Amino acid sequence: MISITKPTLILDEDKCRYNIKRMKEKADAHQQDFRPHFKTHQSNAIGEWVREAGVEAITVSSLGMAYYFAQAGWEDITVAFPFNILETEDLKKFPAHCRLTLLVDNEQTISYLSTSGLSLSIFIEIDSGAHRTGLSSSDYEGVLELIRLVKSFDNLTLRGLYSHAGHSYQCRGEAEVKAVHHQLHNDLKGLKAALKGEEDIYICTGDTPTCSVGGHFEGSNSLSPGNFVFYDVMQAEIGACSYHDIAVAVACPVVSKNADRKEICIYGGAIHFSKDSIEVNGNKSFGQLVESQGNLEWGTVVPDCYLKSLSQEHGLLKVTLAVFDQIQVGDVLMILPIHSCLAAESLGCYITTNGTELEHFSRVKSQR
Amino acid sequence: MISITKPTLILDEDKCRYNIKRMKEKADAHQQDFRPHFKTHQSNAIGEWVREAGVEAITVSSLGMAYYFAQAGWEDITVAFPFNILETEDLKKFPAHCRLTLLVDNEQTISYLSTSGLSLSIFIEIDSGAHRTGLSSSDYEGVLELIRLVKSFDNLTLRGLYSHAGHSYQCRGEAEVKAVHHQLHNDLKGLKAALKGEEDIYICTGDTPTCSVGGHFEGSNSLSPGNFVFYDVMQAEIGACSYHDIAVAVACPVVSKNADRKEICIYGGAIHFSKDSIEVNGNKSFGQLVESQGNLEWGTVVPDCYLKSLSQEHGLLKVTLAVFDQIQVGDVLMILPIHSCLAAESLGCYITTNGTELEHFSRVKSQR
Repeated sequence: MISITKPTLILDEDKCRYNIKRMKEKADAHQQDFRPHFKTHQSNAIGEWVREAGVEAITVSSLGMAYYFAQAGWEDITVAFPFNILETEDLKKFPAHCRLTLLVDNEQTISYLSTSGLSLSIFIEIDSGAHRTGLSSSDYEGVLELIRLVKSFDNLTLRGLYSHAGHSYQCRGEAEVKAVHHQLHNDLKGLKAALKGEEDIYICTGDTPTCSVGGHFEGSNSLSPGNFVFYDVMQAEIGACSYHDIAVAVACPVVSKNADRKEICIYGGAIHFSKDSIEVNGNKSFGQLVESQGNLEWGTVVPDCYLKSLSQEHGLLKVTLAVFDQIQVGDVLMILPIHSCLAAESLGCYITTNGTELEHFSRVKSQR
Repeated sequence: MISITKPTLILDEDKCRYNIKRMKEKADAHQQDFRPHFKTHQSNAIGEWVREAGVEAITVSSLGMAYYFAQAGWEDITVAFPFNILETEDLKKFPAHCRLTLLVDNEQTISYLSTSGLSLSIFIEIDSGAHRTGLSSSDYEGVLELIRLVKSFDNLTLRGLYSHAGHSYQCRGEAEVKAVHHQLHNDLKGLKAALKGEEDIYICTGDTPTCSVGGHFEGSNSLSPGNFVFYDVMQAEIGACSYHDIAVAVACPVVSKNADRKEICIYGGAIHFSKDSIEVNGNKSFGQLVESQGNLEWGTVVPDCYLKSLSQEHGLLKVTLAVFDQIQVGDVLMILPIHSCLAAESLGCYITTNGTELEHFSRVKSQR
């Protein structure tokens, strides 16, 4: 029996394994390769659950994270972040058993890599509407030029195109996500058709909302969602999952109560949840209270009870009168995080509902 | 010569020491004890600079942090977070050489501590307007009752009252901060006068804005600001410091450029800066670009260039046309963080402008 004394990230293994299985089956059903993004869980233990579901290729967001998973035996890893040429020396130390694929969206990086003396696999990044990085999916000429440039270098192997439709995070409700999904795959189909001589190019895409909600993946060959392993309040509000699907909660001690404001102060702040927020039922929320069930389990969302603010270590939970009276100083509350990727990064390890501790890369990284 | 390849927190020792010296001298000039809050830097090395400035007592935000500094020889530490009774066992292991003072704001916690078998020093927390935790500064009866309750137990020693005027963070401009400062000290003076038989009670207060800007500390005996050692963009926009006073910047590699949007993608995201933002010149900013000077130094703010968004590892910097053309993929940019406490916690160590690496507690903590 684990005794919670500090903010602790609790993981429901059954829900997590179910989320993994469901997404893998969906990718299979739609003839999509599955290259899930591991930046959400960043854990070798959870990676093994993904492997047990039949997955062989993965995606990560940093070279350090790629090392971590390569050392655990993964042999096909994409770093889905525009390659940082200042880390080129680190590439030279990468385990030889692993096929590493880098993301590029500009000539300078490609030219730099061409002189690195390394044999490298390359995805060209496409901006399908998130407007963060990548060449526009309507810039057919630009994409074709970059394809040709990569192909012109003997040490570079073009793997295909990669696009993260991050603008799906602006959606509220399944219908909006489906609209983004439809547009995304139409645009990618259009891009493929326009790439003279490259119409068969391999495309990987996959934010969690469109992968969760969309059918028919006509524009892509491969999916790389990440957040779906846990989901979170943001995904539920976007319409990508139900609250029941969320596989992580943060257990937080109650340290103070304010009867006038019906507010509960918990030990659990910005350094535990990070500071993403989303509007839930008209209130800006940094986390949603769920019912505690036994030591480490949780049930349904408690209506109208949400984290209204976070400071470094404090969380301020707004609750109803009935809930206020039930909660005592010294209780441990369970809170669903808004953004599970950042909460996991901040909390740095998992305790499963069975009481097992699982490693997170952020803690390993900090020991280097 | 340090070579920057990843997001790295750079610390200007001269600025930091100057900020420490200035605040210590101000406290001395106003006959205030100085108990600076170490939650901002969380570093033994920087703690030594504070000690060299003549400081003997400090404030922290968690019991773990108190241990860290007690082990480095600090002998008078306040944990300025409502005591979490679930951590009572940890109290028993606390180094005996150190006087630890705990914060309480409710009867339950006091009653619990009274039965702990430990001799403990206590601050009662007062809410002077931040509305986070503590008894209202106008609740004279409630405060007096809690004072009497603490005094009724032989194992508890009342140290005084503690208040963090966190509502000063809502101010924009020095005049607003001064108004909060004036109200705060008026309220604390009024509270003291109203506490029959306890008019000489010791009061500690001190958020960075009011301590930086306010004169005359009529309501308090002691100051405990934290952020002033580094300051940050938020403090500059509040009016608590000038941009020149900011002692930390994050060095970030450039990985991609978008000519259409005049945007630069840097390696530096939410897991490095955390996600606090503030409006600067009408734009929501997650960080402000400063001029790079040599390897690890920086100069003045570059006008109209700011981090417009952060995802997990990406930062998107909006820049002017002239600046856009000067920046190349592979450059290292210097960015002032919005909230230095959270950026330091996230980045987990410091490199001084002289190239020395300094420890941060978050990295030590993660190795336990």
